Amino acid sequence: MTEPVIGVDVGGTGTKAVLADASGTVLAQRHRPTPPRAERVLELACSLVAELSADAAPAAVGLVVPGIVDESRGVAVFSANLGWSEVPFRSLLAQRLGLPVAFGHDVRAGALAEHRLGAARGAADAVFLPVGTGISAAHVQAGRVHAGGGYAGEIGQVPVSGGRLEAVASAAAISRRYQARTGNPVAGAAEVAQRVAAGDPVAAEVWDEAVDALGGALIWLTALLAPEVVVVGGGLSQAGPLLFDPLARRLESDWPLARAPRLVPAELGDRAGSLGAALLAADLAAKINSTEMR
Amino acid sequence: MTEPVIGVDVGGTGTKAVLADASGTVLAQRHRPTPPRAERVLELACSLVAELSADAAPAAVGLVVPGIVDESRGVAVFSANLGWSEVPFRSLLAQRLGLPVAFGHDVRAGALAEHRLGAARGAADAVFLPVGTGISAAHVQAGRVHAGGGYAGEIGQVPVSGGRLEAVASAAAISRRYQARTGNPVAGAAEVAQRVAAGDPVAAEVWDEAVDALGGALIWLTALLAPEVVVVGGGLSQAGPLLFDPLARRLESDWPLARAPRLVPAELGDRAGSLGAALLAADLAAKINSTEMR
Repeated sequence: MTEPVIGVDVGGTGTKAVLADASGTVLAQRHRPTPPRAERVLELACSLVAELSADAAPAAVGLVVPGIVDESRGVAVFSANLGWSEVPFRSLLAQRLGLPVAFGHDVRAGALAEHRLGAARGAADAVFLPVGTGISAAHVQAGRVHAGGGYAGEIGQVPVSGGRLEAVASAAAISRRYQARTGNPVAGAAEVAQRVAAGDPVAAEVWDEAVDALGGALIWLTALLAPEVVVVGGGLSQAGPLLFDPLARRLESDWPLARAPRLVPAELGDRAGSLGAALLAADLAAKINSTEMR
Repeated sequence: MTEPVIGVDVGGTGTKAVLADASGTVLAQRHRPTPPRAERVLELACSLVAELSADAAPAAVGLVVPGIVDESRGVAVFSANLGWSEVPFRSLLAQRLGLPVAFGHDVRAGALAEHRLGAARGAADAVFLPVGTGISAAHVQAGRVHAGGGYAGEIGQVPVSGGRLEAVASAAAISRRYQARTGNPVAGAAEVAQRVAAGDPVAAEVWDEAVDALGGALIWLTALLAPEVVVVGGGLSQAGPLLFDPLARRLESDWPLARAPRLVPAELGDRAGSLGAALLAADLAAKINSTEMR
């Protein structure tokens, strides 16, 4: 029962892997660029597992990827960024490794990690809301994240004033929109945030539009799910009060019911996905153990 | 195991009760005006149970009420319409009846009934969206409806263009808004719908605004939950294609992902709540039975 597990999080640009014990403590980690094509992603996952299991064979491996993921079939249904469709990652990786493999979705795994190990510890339920290159939402309750056949939480696709939510309010959109309006290149949303703080009116306009759209998403998810906690993650959560204060005010002004969620920044940063993958692996290992003991 | 159960649904104006077998087949039913005050609602529930159990003692009774309901504590937290707060209905009714009592929320119970017995039979999950005097949404999956401490699904409170969702798009709002703009009294949303069909431009305007707001709600709940089915209930669901066609078009135009929910009208009508209450009672009876058998 004390065997470690490995979690691998395949991102749009980078892939992270952690070796962790069953309680989620990280024993070792690796970070590599994400290669093109599913075949090479599988090779990378195998080599990361080999590296991280040099000292101790893992009880199980968890792999999580972005896009549309059907956990129940173990299949990556679609990813525009990574250019794949209908890849049966779970069985492919299990065959190559000869180990039990859990397969999941990066954001849903991140939600699990923030709930068990991070900012939503102890909450009855929580929504994980990463705002980075894209925007999505994952609702975790009783150790389960609602997947909706792989399609739940794709709120970045919702039309809002000015375009789809993630074309207005993602960290990527904020820097893109600022550049489009000023002609001044910025390094990212963090730089736009600095300019807001410094009094740049265009930066303030772009920022306010993003926060307004995110506020709308927050009201809808509060109305539908009434989560105890909303964990805001992704690059934009680094903005601190510039993001969290207006979102809290929006809840206060637009949400009339007694129960509103606590709004908190993510605690696990860019390790949420790989830690979540490790938790999926640990859960799988525990399940196998309990079945074997019967 | 063949003992019947009783379900009681306390509505804003009327209270419905059904005697049903464990599979949800209705054996007898009653309908009474809802009295003022929680105390008299309890008396009414007791007398309905007495009437319906003249022939056979029920295995359990289910009671559901509107407003904010905390199923886990068995407490009606708040109802503006019925004017109560923090009423421990479950224990009060169980004491008086000397029977096992399940207590729940009218819409969440209705969702359960539509899922097990009605329009969402066989679906992996479903959202029940009653549009009547108010608007709310309940997500049912694996026989469970997410309650969020009693606050989940209160989408009628979301601000939309023109006011809160239920002040724009409920059946009550549609007739109220039509009357306000024309000075012509109408019997209800059904009459406004008839006028839309007859070419009345003000009726069309009011109707379009309502459908537009409902369409927005539909997009958000699709994005967050990706339910297999959305069961539209309440008075407005009687409008048929005048409601369902534009909602389907809205999903088609505004929702880009491969999976969109099937939109279907509710099948259980105003019996959804009392049937859901009976199902809660049947589940409770089954649980008691299985515990006693151990």
